[in-house]
Order: sequence, then C-alpha cells, then structure tokens
Amino acid sequence: MGEAGRILLAHGAGGRLSHRLIELFVDAFDNPILQQLNDQAVLDPPGSRIAFTTDSYVVDPIFFPGGDIGRLSVCGTVNDLAVGGAEPLYMSASFIIEEGLPLDELERIVHSMAREAASCGVKIVTGDTKVVERGKGDKLFINTAGVGRVRDGMELSPSRIRPGDVVILSGTVGDHGMAVLTKRKGLEIDIPVESDCAPLHTLVAAMIDASRGGIRAMRDPTRGGLATILNELCESSGCGMLIEEERIPVRSEVRGGCELLGLDPLYLANEGKLVAVVDRDCATAVLEAARKNHLGRDAALIGEVLEGPPGRLLLETSVGNRRILEKLSGEQLPRIC
Amino acid sequence: MGEAGRILLAHGAGGRLSHRLIELFVDAFDNPILQQLNDQAVLDPPGSRIAFTTDSYVVDPIFFPGGDIGRLSVCGTVNDLAVGGAEPLYMSASFIIEEGLPLDELERIVHSMAREAASCGVKIVTGDTKVVERGKGDKLFINTAGVGRVRDGMELSPSRIRPGDVVILSGTVGDHGMAVLTKRKGLEIDIPVESDCAPLHTLVAAMIDASRGGIRAMRDPTRGGLATILNELCESSGCGMLIEEERIPVRSEVRGGCELLGLDPLYLANEGKLVAVVDRDCATAVLEAARKNHLGRDAALIGEVLEGPPGRLLLETSVGNRRILEKLSGEQLPRIC
Repeated sequence: MGEAGRILLAHGAGGRLSHRLIELFVDAFDNPILQQLNDQAVLDPPGSRIAFTTDSYVVDPIFFPGGDIGRLSVCGTVNDLAVGGAEPLYMSASFIIEEGLPLDELERIVHSMAREAASCGVKIVTGDTKVVERGKGDKLFINTAGVGRVRDGMELSPSRIRPGDVVILSGTVGDHGMAVLTKRKGLEIDIPVESDCAPLHTLVAAMIDASRGGIRAMRDPTRGGLATILNELCESSGCGMLIEEERIPVRSEVRGGCELLGLDPLYLANEGKLVAVVDRDCATAVLEAARKNHLGRDAALIGEVLEGPPGRLLLETSVGNRRILEKLSGEQLPRIC
Repeated sequence: MGEAGRILLAHGAGGRLSHRLIELFVDAFDNPILQQLNDQAVLDPPGSRIAFTTDSYVVDPIFFPGGDIGRLSVCGTVNDLAVGGAEPLYMSASFIIEEGLPLDELERIVHSMAREAASCGVKIVTGDTKVVERGKGDKLFINTAGVGRVRDGMELSPSRIRPGDVVILSGTVGDHGMAVLTKRKGLEIDIPVESDCAPLHTLVAAMIDASRGGIRAMRDPTRGGLATILNELCESSGCGMLIEEERIPVRSEVRGGCELLGLDPLYLANEGKLVAVVDRDCATAVLEAARKNHLGRDAALIGEVLEGPPGRLLLETSVGNRRILEKLSGEQLPRIC
C-alpha cells in the first residue's frame, strides 16, 4: 500500500489533511452537535444528576474475534455509565493514531463505533485526533468519555453493601480476555471464542426495574477480571464475600485455553458482563429479569456477602475447599482493553 | 535507575500495582468524588446547559519551558470550555504510559495537573490508566475531557459572525510552538521563550461581562495557529476576514526563531491565547477588559470581518500588500500539543 492510503503525520497537524480526517468522523458519527465543529459540545440541561466517565483503549490487536478497539471503546464507556445507574447520552471520542495506519482500518473502526453508538442511542458529540510518528504509538489508541443521566433516586455504591446480600453475575467469564489472546502476535492459538464485548445498558435497566431499589452496587469486571472487581467491592464495603467456583459460568473453550496457557478465567477481562450485589429479598426477581435479556441469559447467583473476613474475598472451590482469592498482583495480560 | 523507580507493565494490569498508581492520582487530585473510586463520577445537576469537550495530548517533549504535558492537558480543556462560554467544573484524566517512564516524572506531571486544576477551581473526578510496552508509546500521552456550565443566554457560534465585526487577539502568537521546538530532540536551539500555556477562563469571563452580549464567537488558536483558526471561523461563518500583520503581536525571540527555522508565527500553536470576533460597538470595552487581565495585557484589535471573499482570510502585510492566508496545509510541527 502506498502512502496515499495511510495516515500521515500531516493528518494530525491541524491543517487540510486533519480536516479530511475530521470529515470521516463527522460523517460517521452523524449528529447536529458534532457537525457544529466547535471545540466543545453544548448539551441540553439534563435536569438531573449526571454521570461522567472515561477510559482509554490500547487493546492489541485492534481487531479481534467479536469486536474491535472502536466497538470496545463505545461499549466500555456505555457500560461504565450503565453500572453507575445512569442512562448513557453523550460521548467524546479521541484518537491517537500511529503514522502509517491504513486509512481503511481506521474507517472500519470509526464505522464500528458509529454503529454501536447508534444502537445504544448515544451521540458522539465531540472529539480530537492526534498523530504520532511511526514507532511512537501502536496503530491506534482511542479514548472515550461519556456523560449520562443518573436515574432519580438511584444510589449505587459499595458502601450500601450489607452482610446477607447476594452476588449476581450476568454470564460467562473470560471470553474477552481469551478472544484477544488468541490473536496476540506470537501466541496465535486456535480457540473458537469471541469477545463478549456488548453494551449493558438495557440489561442494567431491566435489572434495576426488577429490583425495586434492592441493587446495592454494580460493576463490570473488565481488566483484572471477576476476582479483582469483587475484591474491590469487598475493600470498599469492608465486608467479606464468599463465591462458589461451581456456580461461575465459564465456557469450555475458555476453560481449555486457560489450562493451556496457565491462566485463571477469574482474572480474565470481560467486556459484556456485570456483577450486581443485591438485597437477598429481590435476588430472584433480578435474576429472572437478567435472564430474559439475551446479554444476561446465563446469569447466575454466585455467592453472598459475609460479615468477614473484612474486605476479603473467599472462594469455595469445586472440591469444597475455601481459600482467599486475591486481587491480580502482577501483569497477567497487558493491553487486553 | 532500577526498575523500582519506573512504570512497569503490571502498573496497567488492573492489579495491586495499578492500585498504587491510582493512589498517586487520588491523593494529588484530592476530592471526594474521585475518592469514591467508582468507574464513573456522579455530579450534581448543573441546572443549565452543559459544555462537554475532550483533547488528547501527545506533546514531545513532555517537559518544556513554561509547562509540561500535564499542565497543558488541564489548561487545554479549561480553555476549550471557556471559549465556548462555559464555566469549567469537572474534568477526567486518562493516562497512556509507556513502560519504563520514571515514576518521579509521572509524579511531577500529576502534581502539575493537580495544581493547575485547583487554581482553576476544576475538580478531576474520574480517570483511567493504561500502560503499553516499551516502544509502543512515547513516555506519556494524556487525555482530558471536561464538563462545564454554559452561562444562561450565552450563544457563541461562528454562525453569529457578521460583516463589520472586529477581531480581537488576546496577546502574542507562537510562544508555545516555539518553546516546545527549542527542546525538541535533535533541534535544541537556544531561544529564551516560554510556552504561554495558561487557563483562559477568567480572561474569557471578563471579556464576556464587558461585551454585553456583543461577542459572536471565540476560539483558542492552538494546533495550526492563528491563521488556521481564523480560516475555520471564515469557513463556518461564510464571511471573509482581513487581518493586519502589523497589529499581530509576536515576541522578537519568536520572530527570530521563526526566521532561523523557516516557520511562520501565524501557524505556530498557542496554549494561552484566544481570538474573539465581536460586534464593533463593544470592541473598545472588550479590549479594555482583556488588557486589565494579565493574560490579555497585550490584547489587540487585529482585523475585521468582511462580506467576502466568502470563507477566505486576507492578510494585509506590513508593506501594504494583501494576500490570502491559507489553512496550514502540511505538517508544520507534529506533536506540538
């Protein structure tokens, strides 16, 4: 491919080529706020509390089974808003592009973002593009920030978690981490698993509606996996937690891949799953509501909140032993999201 | 320096080391919303329209005379909100760190951000950290997104620009671009100029108050410089514009550096300047208000809006010739912000 089909440093210099790049984004993300091409988007008064979140995405490779870095960057921010009890409304998108990235790859990613945002009812209203020299980046990094409307009266916080609450997981763990790994350079392995990358806002809304205020806290177990996120909920709440290995859904392909690679699926990243800590009295209703949504069809009650040990997560293994499950301590998988 | 003082891949893996890094941010950006360590910040209802903006910063080098990438990332987002007529309130901060970055450099940058945000009255309420392998990034990239409150009744837009309006520039141009260049590897030159990197929200507020509704549009001439930003205002408004070279303040050091390097100060990036297109009737009041603010002490009326040529920017040179000033067309200076 000649230089003509690739990103050049001049695409990031603020001049004519930058403007051509901006046209790609403006056409794909098609909405009147972005079309104003101001350096800031002016949004209607939300009339309620707003949720605000950001994540940068550096996943390697940028295309993987079940998704790409663009789709991931939209779902990730939608999910961070959703698990905070907020309805996703607006998003920013900022691109750090390595010189030489094929323009058609960028276009595929931008259109993937546009489709996902449209399907979520989220408008991408402002953005930025920078280009760095060859060897000073790695194809493409994307940052998205999101603004959402917090439901009236909604208070989700680990501080609301109480002993006796139960832990609901919305589906299988490890799919995203394993899917990205199978395409990692130097590691290519033949495991037929797709990323679970998906926007969780409708699942969250269904669970909230069914709970009648009984959901204490929700999180999406992305980087660091289920074990790390549950550890964080234990630490923040000061409670203990006991989860049962047998109840945690794991695809056989993911389990097999983990055995092959010496990994633990409880520490693998997920991009379309959530954990909810809920009042025991509403657990059945929340679980049923989750299972009616296709993104929650494998939802399971996987454990409960205990008085102690304070801040610690216990795992009851399939052979009946109990052990402490720590946070991820080292570098299991860099650049998984 | 040993590995102990550097960023490791494990700092980005979501485990224990990530949490130590998060402590650095939470301590520095010290506020109760960020301290909740949720994946999203919940903010009070702003009770008005909100402005939303984002920028990624990839400036090279990360420390330069008059600032650093952290201070730049705060000022840049404050300024994008301010020139949209919004009061900056909240900010996100997301870091893409290259493995091996000395921790003390990261700390200096984070504290620089914290100081600047505090001085602007902006809270950094949510964020993210990723680490990429050596050679897959370049020390540090920062993304900030900002949320601000738009003043009631405030409508700033290029579409409000009319023939007869005048163009006010808040001070000297080219300082930031030249300051970064003097420290660029392989180019080190001895020009005593500092970046103008500064938050413009108080200057903007003073100008808005003095204008009694007469400000049509404001922009900060960052990447691509004054010539590019004025071209954008011409294109968006469909009007022509004539600016006079002699009225545009340029420091003699910057002018000298430009002659040495074959650059045009009108295309150099600025990080503490703004241009305002204002109703001629309020020009004197706005100019006086700007000059009373230390960031606007060199403010000047540099030109006027014409019927045509539609969408084109004309420069009257110091010898009295008129020529069309184009947008930046190539790659004058990559990674200037």
